[in-house]
Order: sequence, then structure tokens, then C-alpha cells
Amino acid sequence: MTVTPARRAVILVSGGMDSAVTLALARERGFTCHALSVAYGQRHASELEAAQRVARALGAVEHKTVDIDLRSIGGSALTQDSIAVPDQAGSGIPATYVPARNTIMLSIALGWAEVLGAGDIFCGVNAVDYSGYPDCRPEFIAAFERLANLATKAAVEGAALRVHAPLMRSSKADIVREGVRLNVDFAATVSCYQADRHGRACRRCDACRLRAQGFADAGVADPTLYV
Amino acid sequence: MTVTPARRAVILVSGGMDSAVTLALARERGFTCHALSVAYGQRHASELEAAQRVARALGAVEHKTVDIDLRSIGGSALTQDSIAVPDQAGSGIPATYVPARNTIMLSIALGWAEVLGAGDIFCGVNAVDYSGYPDCRPEFIAAFERLANLATKAAVEGAALRVHAPLMRSSKADIVREGVRLNVDFAATVSCYQADRHGRACRRCDACRLRAQGFADAGVADPTLYV
Repeated sequence: MTVTPARRAVILVSGGMDSAVTLALARERGFTCHALSVAYGQRHASELEAAQRVARALGAVEHKTVDIDLRSIGGSALTQDSIAVPDQAGSGIPATYVPARNTIMLSIALGWAEVLGAGDIFCGVNAVDYSGYPDCRPEFIAAFERLANLATKAAVEGAALRVHAPLMRSSKADIVREGVRLNVDFAATVSCYQADRHGRACRRCDACRLRAQGFADAGVADPTLYV
Repeated sequence: MTVTPARRAVILVSGGMDSAVTLALARERGFTCHALSVAYGQRHASELEAAQRVARALGAVEHKTVDIDLRSIGGSALTQDSIAVPDQAGSGIPATYVPARNTIMLSIALGWAEVLGAGDIFCGVNAVDYSGYPDCRPEFIAAFERLANLATKAAVEGAALRVHAPLMRSSKADIVREGVRLNVDFAATVSCYQADRHGRACRRCDACRLRAQGFADAGVADPTLYV
């Protein structure tokens, strides 16, 4: 008798709440989870420490952080010190948008998935209560999945790759409720764009406001550590 | 009277001959060329020095090298020391294939293009005299272009992005002839997968053999520096 081995998946884990819930969902679906973070020179490096805590707490078998220097490109409030993180959501795509960030992170996930023999990638992108980033939309994820199925040796050899974004159509309150159901420790997560080195949130940036509203709407006490 | 500014393009320049000819073609077409290399932990770091020489010699206005640690993922003879570079082409996709490399490099190019306001990316991929890598095929480039046109703030705002692979259907001999026509100094380029630190080629790997055959077929003296 052979036992079917659990399928491997690569989960993009940023340290924020959405990717934490995504990891918990992937585990619930029976995947062996390999957590991936990308250190791209973001302001909020405490996010990466949160990612490590989240990966361990939610049962990832390993956690890898890949370094890429997106500061050398700049063009975002998150990777260029001369651009401030806005306090209020304005119109249009905000200054915290990082050019091609999700394309780059999914590409790295694709490379690691191929090395692992994993046929599934999970990411926590969301197009409801979000900052309006173009690379968080369903059509972007679908286009990446099409690309991925042409890009690799595994694809040529017939292995299909699926890109899952299980929270794509969830409100922030839905995400909070899913996390509560799955015992996600939200206090361990960091969403703030400019968290201090202890991971304490600013309460003012777009990410903080969306997150706080999610807890309020879900009727769940907000466990976030604020400065 | 306003003068139309030259359009900006990002050119992926590896240090090899194909991307050098691609840069020369982009210049000939009138683009202001921003050369991009990716230091991904490749064995052949002398390629990156060649990239810098090539960018300067062929009139790029700047040359940027972005670091990404693909050694942390491994899975290729080029990024994992325990996997040898094969001397002979076998059947199938060779061990020098780097998982998702072109997806990752094009993604970085996309990010930089957006910061620069460039609407064109050039890369030197080729699907004729090549190593059989899946991410060198025309359908891969087309899928990346579709993705790029969904991925960015520029795309949302209506700016189209084109991904050019002008050598896609050229033989290696055609590429040599184009380079000669465009005064590309092939002696400055390094194609070898395991060039030594002086950029001297091994003469045995797949990249060396394809290159040498190209010069032979074109009837051009091979200026490559061999060990």
C-alpha cells in the first residue's frame, strides 16, 4: 500500500494578515507548505520577522527568504526613502505601489516551486479592501498562471501549475473571520507600511486603516500592536 | 517646436553575444537604451563584467545590475555548485536551465521600465540555435507581454508595454552576421557557462559550442578568448 504524499505548495508569506490566512487555508486543504518571503528592500523589514513567526506558527515545513535589491530600481514609497508613505488614501494608485512587485515575487515563487516539484503557488492578494494595486486583480493572477504554464521545464514536461489567490474576493472582515476560524494569531502579523523595528504599526497608513476597519467590521477585537 | 524625445527602452544585457546584438539593434531603432543585468548568483560572474563593457561600448545611457540570490533556490548547474555543467548536449532540457530565470529577469525589467517611463523591453532570447529552455520560446515572450500589460500602474493608465525579442527566429550565424553589420565587438562578450574569472571560455559547454558553430557557419573568425 502506498500513501499519497501530501502535495507541496509554495506560499508567499509577507508577514501581513492576508498571507497568514492564505497559509492557514493552504494547510487546511492538505498541502505541505513551503513559505517564501522576499526581502526586496522594503521599509518595513519587521514584516520579514513577522513572516518567519507566521510560517512557524501556521505549520509551514520551511521558510525561505530570497533577497532582491529593488531599492536599486526605486519608484515606490516602500523602496525609496525620498518618497513618503501617504497618510490618507488619495485617488488612483498610491505611492506605496512597488513597480512589478507581485510579478517579481510570483516569478521567484515559480522558480522555487519548480525546484521543489510543487504544482501550486498560493498568494494573499485581494481586490476588495485593497490599495488599488494593478497586480492584485484576478486578471493579473490568471495571466501569471498562463505564463507559468509556459515558462518552466516542469510545464514542458506536462506538470500544470496553479496559482491560488483564495482571498481575492474576500472583504477584510471576511479575512478576519477566516483567520479567527483557523486560529491565526493576528497579533503576530505586521501589515503596516512603516512599522517600527518592533513591528509596531503607525495606525495612519492605508494598510493600517484597511486592517483596523476589517477588525471593526468583523466585530473582532483588534490585537494589532500600535506605536 | 517640440522635438520628440527618443523612446526609452530597457535592454536585458547578460554579457553574451545575443543580448549584445539585441542592444545594438535597439540603438539602431532609435531607442534610448537602459541596460539591465541581473546578478543571480551565476557561476559565470565574468559575464557581468562583460555586460558592463558591452553596455558602454554599444551606447547604453546607463547600466544597472540588480542582485537577486537565486542560489538560495538552486536547482541548476549555474546556481548550485553540486550540479555540474554538462560537456555535451543530452536529450531534453539541460542542467544549465535555471528555474524561472527569464520570468524573473523580465519581471525586474518590467519594474525598472515602469520607473523609467519606458514602454519597451528588449531581450536576446532565441529559439533556433539554443539550449531548449522553455522560457526562450515565442509563446513565452507573448505570454509575458500579456501579463506585463496587466501588471503595472502604467498599464492601468493606458501605456502599452512591448517585449521585443528581435533574435527569436535567427540562427546563431544570422546573429553573428547582424553583430558584424552593427560593429559589435564579440571579443568583449562572454557566452560560456563556466568562463574563468578573466572571461575565458571553456570551449566545451553548450553555450560555447553553439557560439563557435555560429562563427563557423557565418564564415567569421571566432574572436572568443578560450582557456
